[in-house]
Amino acid sequence: MEGGRGGKRWRFATPNLAVAAAGERSIQRYLLQLHACLDEHGPRPVIPLSHGDPSSSACFRTAPEAEEAVAAAVRSGDYNGYSSPATSLPARRAVAEYLSCDLPYKLCTDDIFLTSGGTQAIEIVMSVFGQPGANILLPKPGYPKHEAHAVFHRMEVRLYDLVPERGWEINVEAVEALADENTVAIVITNPNNPCGNVYTYEHLSKIADTASKLGLLVIADEVYGHLVYGSTPFVPMGVFGETVPVLTLGAISKRWVVPGWRFGWIAICDPKGILKETKVVDSLRSFRNLTTGPATFIQGAIPHIMKNTNDEFFRKTLELLKETAEICFGEIKEIKCITCPQKPEGSFFMMVKLDISQLSDICDDIDFCSKLVKEESVVLLPGRALGMENWLRITFALDPPRLKQGLERVKSFCRRHQSHANMLNISASAKVEPHFGMSKS
Amino acid sequence: MEGGRGGKRWRFATPNLAVAAAGERSIQRYLLQLHACLDEHGPRPVIPLSHGDPSSSACFRTAPEAEEAVAAAVRSGDYNGYSSPATSLPARRAVAEYLSCDLPYKLCTDDIFLTSGGTQAIEIVMSVFGQPGANILLPKPGYPKHEAHAVFHRMEVRLYDLVPERGWEINVEAVEALADENTVAIVITNPNNPCGNVYTYEHLSKIADTASKLGLLVIADEVYGHLVYGSTPFVPMGVFGETVPVLTLGAISKRWVVPGWRFGWIAICDPKGILKETKVVDSLRSFRNLTTGPATFIQGAIPHIMKNTNDEFFRKTLELLKETAEICFGEIKEIKCITCPQKPEGSFFMMVKLDISQLSDICDDIDFCSKLVKEESVVLLPGRALGMENWLRITFALDPPRLKQGLERVKSFCRRHQSHANMLNISASAKVEPHFGMSKS
Repeated sequence: MEGGRGGKRWRFATPNLAVAAAGERSIQRYLLQLHACLDEHGPRPVIPLSHGDPSSSACFRTAPEAEEAVAAAVRSGDYNGYSSPATSLPARRAVAEYLSCDLPYKLCTDDIFLTSGGTQAIEIVMSVFGQPGANILLPKPGYPKHEAHAVFHRMEVRLYDLVPERGWEINVEAVEALADENTVAIVITNPNNPCGNVYTYEHLSKIADTASKLGLLVIADEVYGHLVYGSTPFVPMGVFGETVPVLTLGAISKRWVVPGWRFGWIAICDPKGILKETKVVDSLRSFRNLTTGPATFIQGAIPHIMKNTNDEFFRKTLELLKETAEICFGEIKEIKCITCPQKPEGSFFMMVKLDISQLSDICDDIDFCSKLVKEESVVLLPGRALGMENWLRITFALDPPRLKQGLERVKSFCRRHQSHANMLNISASAKVEPHFGMSKS
Repeated sequence: MEGGRGGKRWRFATPNLAVAAAGERSIQRYLLQLHACLDEHGPRPVIPLSHGDPSSSACFRTAPEAEEAVAAAVRSGDYNGYSSPATSLPARRAVAEYLSCDLPYKLCTDDIFLTSGGTQAIEIVMSVFGQPGANILLPKPGYPKHEAHAVFHRMEVRLYDLVPERGWEINVEAVEALADENTVAIVITNPNNPCGNVYTYEHLSKIADTASKLGLLVIADEVYGHLVYGSTPFVPMGVFGETVPVLTLGAISKRWVVPGWRFGWIAICDPKGILKETKVVDSLRSFRNLTTGPATFIQGAIPHIMKNTNDEFFRKTLELLKETAEICFGEIKEIKCITCPQKPEGSFFMMVKLDISQLSDICDDIDFCSKLVKEESVVLLPGRALGMENWLRITFALDPPRLKQGLERVKSFCRRHQSHANMLNISASAKVEPHFGMSKS
């Protein structure tokens, strides 16, 4: 317990290993390392294809009616105080109604806990279930905050695979093999971050059956709910609440493109009342009372935001995501050392595989991203941050010209670093001058 | 691990004892119980003298320039995204400058972590220091969230006394006796909730010396900073940062009367860099990255709020608190079974002692508050919620007429329940008709 200058004993100097272990699981840690590689005086603006926040692109600006609703709530002076039933009930009712539209039963206000964005929803759930001895099933690749908070709250994390060859479906057999009597829950993310896939009704139904058989709670991270633009519709996991109790985590962050507003929820999708009966609801309520929720005026604005946002805003957002997903998928196809196993149909991410053997002087995904940011001022997220070495996560929710420019830079970077053997190979087969004919034909 | 209907094994059904233990420490739990006693159909409006949120009184409405700053930030569309250095740096700089005005050294932006109100500041600090085996010194009476989060994060809580006869000063000898080699920190609250006292420079200096001698960190909860209106000026604990490292927890919640806006901070007041050297700062940063902070547009508004709030607003608030503190102190003096050891000089609370022996049919503070709310529709906080049986916490930050009305009801309640022996006693000495002469002369 020693610490400080001159051997003075500062008794607080013992490092907290749980914090350190949790801190390892952080996208931000990787992004900070990459940003340190950036040439700040480089001639070209940085293009971030690395994180889940499209709001910096003007084309993804939120609906004006949403901004006005918050401004009006602030100016009313009615929402300066702590959250109270008078302020939170209408917001919880609005969320309950919003979610109930897609469910075969109705949620009530008591089924909704308001949170400070999706992150706090994860924090609260992991706080409530985390105990020594318990384990939890998380997807690989996955969202690092699930793992970070599970680890911080003393749970053993067991990773189940998402299968790229099956459109990133969950390996249900692996789930069965991983679970034991101390497994409390399985986390699923749908629409998926980082893979961009959307689970079918049939697949979700199979997961529900499996979880029920194993006696597990399903924690459904649906922060990207409704952001789908392919052939698979979005089905909330709560649809299977009769089969297995589901805690749904959601937020306005992604669909309304306002992650900075910090409004999310935990919804109890459990028409049979199993979570109430087993006192899980009491635990959630008890813990919720100790923490802090979304700003009161956001709560005040939520009924307006949820009821009055123009459909045109949602339609435009999805159209733009469909367009940018197409651009990204198309451009990546032209890069020989990168393969995308599945065209995204939801969220705004794509997981792509890096074939290191085709690159001359790059040893892994982190090396790839570090050199890319240095040479091209483009930021990609190394798969390692998500548990997948030699994969990359690309965010395509950018205005199309900037996205194209970013992908062009990735392309030219890959060309430049293509291994010589490979170059000869290509130049021979494509019969082009090795220095200029590196794109896949 | 059994739970659910028909003996089905739901593996998540083991109650989380840490959550339950933390949940016990909650003001809200007591207030919910009291509200359940309320006669909803009673003829008189409820007067809440129980919790720390004056914002419902029109006279405590925040400064218009603060509301406008937030509305403008929302409408700009520049603060919809996640917090980034571009958005958080100006806010952290504003907080650093705000706090540095009262310190003998300058804080920099790296010394400031933004939090979602004071509550999250407590959560983060307890998360970072909480480990099995560690213990922490907390004041009694104290603020239950300190204890709740300490307990939840596996710390042993050791309570040191605040001494009513010495103006609620800290019993420094008790602190020395309680600390051992596993004590990591002492929490002090100044201006004090629930006692309403303000520590002198000399007393704070003594605490700093003691903490330094014991090798403890000082966690200074200064959420009520600058809300002082008596003879003792507010001295931030950071003034003694050369003697002992201090983490200062603060917020705009109380001084600006906007607890619902959820903006607070942790400030590292440690000019010698001991917290950096001992990696505490790394832990704080690491944990902060995993959680969620204040809404981005509040961050955007903070530089304006801190620089442009009219002094007149602060002056008016303090004047009102001084007035309401006087009213409360004066009215309580007239109630025989309640004694206030110290006239409040800061925050907006008063701790008063209940003499149960003078009441005929009331067995303790909880019974007192339950019957009071039922009969008079006035809510007071039982001292038990703060670790002090047969004391009461009174919040006086209400518009003066409502405050007076509330205290009149308390007075008439106490008269009605005064014990017979006592009544005879008084009537004899005061020579007045027993049914009408119950006030102290």
